[in-house]
Amino acid sequence: MKRRSKPTSFFHRICASLFVLVLTLSIALLFDNCSNRAEGGHASDEVPQAKAGLQEEGHGPITLVLHGGAGTIKKENMSPELEEDYKQEMKKALIAGYTVLEEGGSSVKAVTTTLQLLEASPLFNAGIGAVFTNEGENELDASIMDGATGLAGAVAGVTTVKSPILAAEAVMQHSPHVMMVGKGAEVFAKEQGLEMVDKGYFHTERRFQQLQKIKKAEEEGQKMGYLDRHHPNRKFGTVGAVALDKNGNIAAGTSTGGMTNKKFGRVGDSPIIGAGTYADNMTCGVSATGHGEYFIRSVVAYDIAATMSYKSMSLEDAAHEVIMKKLVEKQGTGGIIALDRKGNIAMPFNTSGMYRGYIQEKDLPKVFIYKE
Amino acid sequence: MKRRSKPTSFFHRICASLFVLVLTLSIALLFDNCSNRAEGGHASDEVPQAKAGLQEEGHGPITLVLHGGAGTIKKENMSPELEEDYKQEMKKALIAGYTVLEEGGSSVKAVTTTLQLLEASPLFNAGIGAVFTNEGENELDASIMDGATGLAGAVAGVTTVKSPILAAEAVMQHSPHVMMVGKGAEVFAKEQGLEMVDKGYFHTERRFQQLQKIKKAEEEGQKMGYLDRHHPNRKFGTVGAVALDKNGNIAAGTSTGGMTNKKFGRVGDSPIIGAGTYADNMTCGVSATGHGEYFIRSVVAYDIAATMSYKSMSLEDAAHEVIMKKLVEKQGTGGIIALDRKGNIAMPFNTSGMYRGYIQEKDLPKVFIYKE
Repeated sequence: MKRRSKPTSFFHRICASLFVLVLTLSIALLFDNCSNRAEGGHASDEVPQAKAGLQEEGHGPITLVLHGGAGTIKKENMSPELEEDYKQEMKKALIAGYTVLEEGGSSVKAVTTTLQLLEASPLFNAGIGAVFTNEGENELDASIMDGATGLAGAVAGVTTVKSPILAAEAVMQHSPHVMMVGKGAEVFAKEQGLEMVDKGYFHTERRFQQLQKIKKAEEEGQKMGYLDRHHPNRKFGTVGAVALDKNGNIAAGTSTGGMTNKKFGRVGDSPIIGAGTYADNMTCGVSATGHGEYFIRSVVAYDIAATMSYKSMSLEDAAHEVIMKKLVEKQGTGGIIALDRKGNIAMPFNTSGMYRGYIQEKDLPKVFIYKE
Repeated sequence: MKRRSKPTSFFHRICASLFVLVLTLSIALLFDNCSNRAEGGHASDEVPQAKAGLQEEGHGPITLVLHGGAGTIKKENMSPELEEDYKQEMKKALIAGYTVLEEGGSSVKAVTTTLQLLEASPLFNAGIGAVFTNEGENELDASIMDGATGLAGAVAGVTTVKSPILAAEAVMQHSPHVMMVGKGAEVFAKEQGLEMVDKGYFHTERRFQQLQKIKKAEEEGQKMGYLDRHHPNRKFGTVGAVALDKNGNIAAGTSTGGMTNKKFGRVGDSPIIGAGTYADNMTCGVSATGHGEYFIRSVVAYDIAATMSYKSMSLEDAAHEVIMKKLVEKQGTGGIIALDRKGNIAMPFNTSGMYRGYIQEKDLPKVFIYKE
């Protein structure tokens, strides 16, 4: 008996040690998972998230998501009529883009269709309704990226192209280049047969008055204007859309009039691939809106895709990580809309409001303005 | 005896299973590690790599690395005199930048000092010696990023600023913006007291003849010009520098004249933060040179930093992954120089040559042109 007991007890000890080791490892793994979930535990009821088991192999349903800018947007500063106007314009744009997708159109086409409508609306800071530069001009920027091909196009500082997003699309489709700026971009757009307009086409009285107000405040030494991120009239107006078409292709686009009272020649993140716009079928499509300088320096749009890809995070967790943590730490304000191949949507923003919405079922556009 | 043997054998079985599990896990982990090492097993003898145990805690020695463009650069097309000229110019620029670092200057100052010299040399496609656009002009782009603060500055499409890299630095240091283009950028540079020049300042006969040659070839229907990536005269001229100063701060900068015969208004990756230039003390500084459109779409500079950070790769492995694998798969041609906080250097390129060099010891600049 004694003889047997020794090896058994020795073996027992090894086994017990192994057991403890495995248990510790399991607990550690479990804990790691849990803490990841806790960090990412911000699932909003606002947007559809991956349904377990659904379309694990293929892609999600045709989906369109848009934004109309983020910033200091508060219910107390908004009339019910204006609020309704914003919502109606967003719904109209969502339905128009969704119709393209429903008829079998590409995600690129859905994005340009949606953004053309938002550019044509004086409510949003893009196209008509663009804000004024310090010099009293409207300088427009836009970009688009096709997640299926990896191709991209962008224009910056254009003043006479009716639809900047169409100009960006033309650069992508009909030039060997990605980005064209200023006069060169305008000559190219004209050569491509795009509709050109007088500079006055983009002017709206409301934006002109905004410029006067900010300039006056500056003169009064209130340190407002383009340096002040906290000006109550400061909206980071930009419009953007991301679409998933019936072939599972993602495209993203962004169009803007820039910042009120910006120095002329300033280019924000909207026409910068990787910062304001990014799309890749393998990860996601992203369009950003916010204080562009912070978005450029943090390469925000691509960072969400890289976080998904390299850290195996879900779209929602990656978007949350980049916008609600990393960008907040750097005091960068704004938000993004994003969409992955499964049709999952993320729309995080760290400002008081962001005009945003999505459509995933016919005639059922969902739109939001404030934090829900 | 029989009574005892049963629980023992049961316990043995559990223990044996656990043992197999732990063994499998260990082997899997080991294998994973090994395969990572195998993939990254391309250490070149050309540049210094992390010395085991050295400066594990702090930062590496002051270091400067530069490039003067990548492309179809072959020994058989180069005279010994021209080769020597390139080498001498690079050595001069390396020593000038290193002297700044040695005297305690910042990495930003070392980068601008180095790039000013390369801009002033007619050999490189930046500043004097810039290539011509299709319209016979020189349009210059540049950008800089400070890895200590995360601040960045860029100018694009400028024609009368003597040193585009100084203009980019001025945008970073003295404006709330990151990127300024065209006339607006020039007005700003002038306001900042930077030296302005006539457009003719940048013209060189050599570059003008290059344009004529490509235009003539185009006329002859040889489909050359800006669409042809394989033209023998096609060099992706750009200059770039990355520095590590005595405080462990990294900065990166890039300056270019763009592509010969490009459409006017075209902007490549050089002034795009994230594509042509990126710096972050926590990861690395990067300056790129190559077919800019591919670098923008792949967000090359930031992708190297993200790969290091999210996939815990070394600088060399991350740079190799992005330039020699991902970019090659997409048929993007060019290269980068990069530097991490330990003073490790990476200079991968997938073209036949890249003007490049580094300095880590006083008066000992190392320069290279072809594949070594």
